[in-house]
Amino acid sequence: MAITSPHPFDPLSPREIIQAANVVREALPQNVPNFRVITLQEPPKHEMIKFLEQIHLHKQPQLPTRTARVQVTVQSESGSPELVELFVNLDQGIISKKEHLPGRHSYIDTSYMQAVENACRADPRIESEIQKLRLPKDATVVIEPWAYATDGMKDMTERTTMCWFYMRLLDHPDANYYAYPLDLCAEVSEDLQVTQIYHLPLSEDDRTSTAGCSYDHNKVHSTNLSEYHPSLRPPPRTTTKPYQIIQPQGPSFKCEGNLVSWEKWTFRVGFNYREGLTLHDIRYDNRSLFYRLSLAEMFVPYGDPRSPFPRKGAFDLGNDGAGINANNLRLGCDCLGVIKYFDGWHNTSTGEPVKLPNVICCHEQDDGILWKHTNFRTQNAVVARSRILILQTIITVTNYEYIFAVHFGQDASLHYEVRATGILSTCPINIGDSVGYGTVVAPGVLAPYHQHLFSLRIDPAIDGVSNSLQVEESHTMPVDDPSTHNPFGVGYTTKSEIVTEETGLDLDFTKNRTFKIINEKKINPTTGTPVGFKILPCYSQMLLAHPQSYHARRSEFGSHAIWVTRYQDDELFPAGRYTMQSLGGEGIQSAIEKRKNDSASETTVRDQDIVIWHTFGSTHNPRIEDWPVMPSEKMIVGLKPVNFFEGNPALDVAPSTQENNKSMLV
Amino acid sequence: MAITSPHPFDPLSPREIIQAANVVREALPQNVPNFRVITLQEPPKHEMIKFLEQIHLHKQPQLPTRTARVQVTVQSESGSPELVELFVNLDQGIISKKEHLPGRHSYIDTSYMQAVENACRADPRIESEIQKLRLPKDATVVIEPWAYATDGMKDMTERTTMCWFYMRLLDHPDANYYAYPLDLCAEVSEDLQVTQIYHLPLSEDDRTSTAGCSYDHNKVHSTNLSEYHPSLRPPPRTTTKPYQIIQPQGPSFKCEGNLVSWEKWTFRVGFNYREGLTLHDIRYDNRSLFYRLSLAEMFVPYGDPRSPFPRKGAFDLGNDGAGINANNLRLGCDCLGVIKYFDGWHNTSTGEPVKLPNVICCHEQDDGILWKHTNFRTQNAVVARSRILILQTIITVTNYEYIFAVHFGQDASLHYEVRATGILSTCPINIGDSVGYGTVVAPGVLAPYHQHLFSLRIDPAIDGVSNSLQVEESHTMPVDDPSTHNPFGVGYTTKSEIVTEETGLDLDFTKNRTFKIINEKKINPTTGTPVGFKILPCYSQMLLAHPQSYHARRSEFGSHAIWVTRYQDDELFPAGRYTMQSLGGEGIQSAIEKRKNDSASETTVRDQDIVIWHTFGSTHNPRIEDWPVMPSEKMIVGLKPVNFFEGNPALDVAPSTQENNKSMLV
Repeated sequence: MAITSPHPFDPLSPREIIQAANVVREALPQNVPNFRVITLQEPPKHEMIKFLEQIHLHKQPQLPTRTARVQVTVQSESGSPELVELFVNLDQGIISKKEHLPGRHSYIDTSYMQAVENACRADPRIESEIQKLRLPKDATVVIEPWAYATDGMKDMTERTTMCWFYMRLLDHPDANYYAYPLDLCAEVSEDLQVTQIYHLPLSEDDRTSTAGCSYDHNKVHSTNLSEYHPSLRPPPRTTTKPYQIIQPQGPSFKCEGNLVSWEKWTFRVGFNYREGLTLHDIRYDNRSLFYRLSLAEMFVPYGDPRSPFPRKGAFDLGNDGAGINANNLRLGCDCLGVIKYFDGWHNTSTGEPVKLPNVICCHEQDDGILWKHTNFRTQNAVVARSRILILQTIITVTNYEYIFAVHFGQDASLHYEVRATGILSTCPINIGDSVGYGTVVAPGVLAPYHQHLFSLRIDPAIDGVSNSLQVEESHTMPVDDPSTHNPFGVGYTTKSEIVTEETGLDLDFTKNRTFKIINEKKINPTTGTPVGFKILPCYSQMLLAHPQSYHARRSEFGSHAIWVTRYQDDELFPAGRYTMQSLGGEGIQSAIEKRKNDSASETTVRDQDIVIWHTFGSTHNPRIEDWPVMPSEKMIVGLKPVNFFEGNPALDVAPSTQENNKSMLV
Repeated sequence: MAITSPHPFDPLSPREIIQAANVVREALPQNVPNFRVITLQEPPKHEMIKFLEQIHLHKQPQLPTRTARVQVTVQSESGSPELVELFVNLDQGIISKKEHLPGRHSYIDTSYMQAVENACRADPRIESEIQKLRLPKDATVVIEPWAYATDGMKDMTERTTMCWFYMRLLDHPDANYYAYPLDLCAEVSEDLQVTQIYHLPLSEDDRTSTAGCSYDHNKVHSTNLSEYHPSLRPPPRTTTKPYQIIQPQGPSFKCEGNLVSWEKWTFRVGFNYREGLTLHDIRYDNRSLFYRLSLAEMFVPYGDPRSPFPRKGAFDLGNDGAGINANNLRLGCDCLGVIKYFDGWHNTSTGEPVKLPNVICCHEQDDGILWKHTNFRTQNAVVARSRILILQTIITVTNYEYIFAVHFGQDASLHYEVRATGILSTCPINIGDSVGYGTVVAPGVLAPYHQHLFSLRIDPAIDGVSNSLQVEESHTMPVDDPSTHNPFGVGYTTKSEIVTEETGLDLDFTKNRTFKIINEKKINPTTGTPVGFKILPCYSQMLLAHPQSYHARRSEFGSHAIWVTRYQDDELFPAGRYTMQSLGGEGIQSAIEKRKNDSASETTVRDQDIVIWHTFGSTHNPRIEDWPVMPSEKMIVGLKPVNFFEGNPALDVAPSTQENNKSMLV
C-alpha cells in the first residue's frame, strides 16, 4: 500500500493502522491476535534532529523509516494470554522486531473488564452475599472493576481484578452510584473466576472480614445531595447570563495538518493511546525550544491502609491511557470561541482503525493584561492584552476527570495546566464513624485520602539539542564578612550550580531555588549569560506511601520533584513501560542507578541531550465540597524564557484598543 | 450639612470630604492646613457586627457614627512641616480626636516631589556635574525623586529625598529614560537643599565616589530595544485577530451603590487612598465569610549592597498609596466585556474633593471548565463552565505597575491575583561589567535584584466572628508501629493543631501544610468537622535582607508567610501606619510581642476574632525578557471552602450548552 509521506511525528493514519495490522496478522499465522495497540514508533532522535534541521533550512530532508509499534495478546502455549510486541516497518511492510513479553500486561481492556463484571454477576456466592445485604427493593447493584494495584499478595504474571460494589437507587443510567458504596468486594482471576470475596472495613478498627451484615438503611440519604445529572437535579440556578466569544476575523492560528502556527509559535500536535496529546518540535520565532513535551505518567495512590484498599493505586496513563480515555469534546461546552478539533485514531481488537473524534481542541483566549505602563509624568498608558492559545484534552478514568491544557503565551511562555474534576472514589463507612485517612462526604460514604502525582516530561532543545540544567538560589549576603561589601545588610545574590550527573532534585521556595534549562554554548550578548528557559514548578508534596511499599517502588518518580536524565530513545515513562501489576524497579530512579553502575553508559548531563521530568500534583484529602462532582482543582507548571531573547518578546504585540475589542459599559 | 445615610463601609462622599475639611479648617484657625488625607475611618468592629447582624435580618440597624480620618501638615513652631491627624465626627460636625505626630511623614506628595526635582535642576553643582558627563547633545536629563529608605545615615524626623538621574535620547515625552541611567544621584533635604551628590558605583568593586567621569557613549544603544511606546516602535505584529466578549442579556452581576451581588455572592466595595480596593462583609448564599479583605502592605527592597542603593526600598502602599496611584481604567484596554466602573474620591491639598475616575472595574469572565463528569457506561457527559467575577484595580508606582484582582468563583472560591508589570528600576554599569545582584538588560543598564513582598490581610468571619486557625499536615503512617495498622505501607493521615497564640508561621508544601480558618462552634453535620475556609498560599521566598538591616526591621511581615493576630480596631498595616522613613519596631511582630509582654492584653487567638495576614511575592532577579516593559508575572492566593457547605456549592450551575454559548468551528 502506497503511503503518501506523513511528517515523522504525525500519528499513524487509518491506512497505516490497517497496513500494520495486516503485516502483524501475516506474521502470526497460528494466532488470532487481539490487537491492543497500533501506534507510531517515533523515529530515533538522531535521525529526527537531522530531519528537523533540514526542514527548518527549507531543504528536502530524508524521511526516517515509518514504524508502527504494535502490541497484541495471543494465546500462549499454556493457554493463557501473552503480550507480544512487534515493530512494523511500514515503508517495507515487514516486521523489524518482535518480542514476547511473558508476565507483562497491556493497558486496561474494556471488553475484558465487562467480562469480569459479568463473571461477578454470574457467581452464586456473590449473588448470595448481595441477598444478605437486604438492599432497598428498587436498588440496582453496580460493579466497578479496577486493575489490581500490586500489594505483594498475588502472582504478578496473572492478571487480577478487584471489583467494587455500589448500588443505584434511582432507575436512571446516570444516577450516581458512588453515593451508595456497598460493603462488598470481589477478586477475580485472569480466567474470570471469583477467587475471593471481601467484606470491607466499616470503621477505623474494623479489619477485613468475610462475615457480611445487612446494609444499614440509614445510609439511604437524599439523592439531592449526591446526584449531578441535570435530569436528576432540581432546576439549576438561572442567574448566569450567556457569555459568548466573537472572533469576527476568525482565529489567529493556522493548522496545516498537525502543524500549528500561532503568533510566533510553531509546533506539531501528536496523539497516542497512552499519553494522549503530545507536542513536538516546539519553536518560537523559528528558534528551537522543546523537542517534545508530554504528560508521561500519573499515579493515584490511595492512603487508606485497611485491606483490601492498598490495592487501590492507579497509573492513569500506564494502566488506562490518556489517549484511549480522551473525551469527545463538544462545541460550546468543553470549548468556547472559535475551535479547531483534532481527531485521534486507535484500533479495534481485530486491528481495524477507530476514530476518536474531537479528542483535542485548539482555541484562543483572552488572558487579561500582558503588559502595561503608565508614564506618571504624561499619564499616557500603553496596555497590551494577552492572548493565549490553548490545546486541551480531557480524559475520564472511571470516576474521575482530568483536563489537560497547554497554554502558549505571546511572551514565549508556556504553561501546562491540569484540572482535576469528576467524582471521588468512595467506600462504605458506618454511620457516625470516622477514620484518619478519609472524609465522610455523605451518610455512610467515605472518600479516602489519595494523591495525584503527575510527571511532565520536558525534552528540551533550547537553541539546540545540547542543554544543561542549572540550579540557582538567592541568598542573603553576609554582613560581617570583610571580603564582601554589604555594610547595610540589604544585599543578596544568586548562587548557581550546573547539574553534572543524572539525578532527582527537590524544590525549595525558601531559597527561591530555580531550575533553568540552559544552552551553555549560546551566550546572550547583553546579559552575558547562557540562553535558557526556567521551570515554574507546581509546589507539591511528594509520594506519602512508605518507601518500602509497593506504591513507592512502582512510582519512583514520586520521590523527587525534578529529575534530569540523559536522553534515551524510548525512555518515555518514569514508572516504566509496563505499569500494570508492576513490581517496581523499572522507574526513573532505577534507570539512573542502572546506568550509573554500567561503565558503558554515559551518565553526564552537562551540555548533553537531556530530559527534565517534573513531578507535581496534589495530596487530595477530600472536602465535602468535592462531592458529588468536584469543582476543578487547578495545578499549573510554567516554562519561561530567561535571558533567551533580547528583550520582552511580546513588546511587538499591538496595544489594545476599544475599537478592536468593543467592550461595553453596564 | 445634611448627609443622607451612606452605608458605614462606603467611602466618604465628596460632600463628606468637603464637610470634614471645613471642620478641620475651623479647628486649625492659625494654620493653612495642607490636606493630605480625608478618608473614612471605619466604625469600631463591635458596632459593625451588630449593624451587619441587623441588616442581614432585614431590620433597621442603628447607624454607627460617621467619622472622617484627616491628615494635614501644618507649619510647626520651628517652621518645619508637622503632621497632624484629626478625626471628624461627621454626624455632629466636630473634631472627636486630634493628634500631633512630630517626626512622622505622610505618603509621597507629588507636588513636593516636583519641588525636589526643581531644586536639583536649580543647583549649580548638579548643573556642573551634568556638564562633566558630556551627554549626547540632544539628550534631556530626567530626575526621578524617590522617598529615602532608611539606612540609618540620616535623621528620621526630617524628610530626605533621593534623586536618580536618567536621560531621554528621543525628543518624546514617553521615551523610556530608564534605558539611559546616569552616574549621578542627589540627596535633597526637607527644605529643598541638595545636601549631597553621589557618583554611582559602576562595577562590583566600585564604591561610591564623588569623582565623576564622562558618560560612556558606548551606552547609547539602539532605542529599538528599549522603547515601548507605540509611537517610538516599529509597527506591531498584525497576527493577533480581534476577540470580543458578547453578553447579549447583560452581565450576571448587580450593583446597588457599592453593594455587589453576583451569583450567590454579596459584598461591599470600598476604596481608600492607601489600600485602594477593599472588600467588606463578603458573603456566599447569605452566610458570612469575611469581614474585610485588603492588600495591607507591599515592600520592594533592592538587593544591591553598594551605597547609596540600600536607600532603595519602597513601601508601595504605606509610602505611595494604592488608591492615589490607581489608574483610570479604560474600556476595551484594561477590561474586556461588559464593564462596571467604580470611581474613587480623594482630596486636594486645599481640602477639595477630587474624583479618581474608573479606579476599579468589575466584570465577568469565562474561566474554562468548572466541573465535568462523563459516565463511562453511558458516555453521557455533563459539563458546567466556570464564570468568574473580577474586581480589578491597577496602580502605577513610578516605573512599575501592579494589577490587583479579586476573582470570585461560582464554587465559593475566591482568588486574589497580583500581576507585576511595568518598567524595571535601573542604574548604570560599566560596559562589559557584571555584578552578583543584578542583570544587565541593555548596554550600560543594570536592573538590580529586588523582592516584591505583599501582605494580604484576611479578616475572616467564617459563619461568625469567632474563628480559629488550624494547621493541618499530611504524614506517612509508620509501618512498624504495632498500634497502627498499616501492613502494606500505603497509609497516610492528617495531623492538625489549632494555633492558640498570636504568631508568625511558615509554609511547608513537603508536608502539605494547610492553613484552615475554621469556626469551631459550627460543625459540618456530614463530615463531623468544623466549617472552614483554607488558604491556598502563594509559595514565596521571604525577605532576604539581613535581620539586622533596616529593610528587615521596617518590614517585619516579610519574615513569615502566615501571621495570625487577634483583631484590633485600626491594626490594618503590618509594617505600621507610618512607613515613610520608619525605623522599624512598629510592624506585626512588634505588635505581637508588645501584647505578649502586656498582661492586660488578650493574646489568645483560638475561637476569637482573628486576622490572618499572608506574606507572599517574588524574588525578582530580572530577566532580559522583563525589559523594557515586563510581561505580567502572576502571583495567586486562593481561599476555598473546606467542609463549609453540604457539597459542591457549584452543583446547581447550569450545564453548558452550545445554544447559549454559540461557539464556532474553524
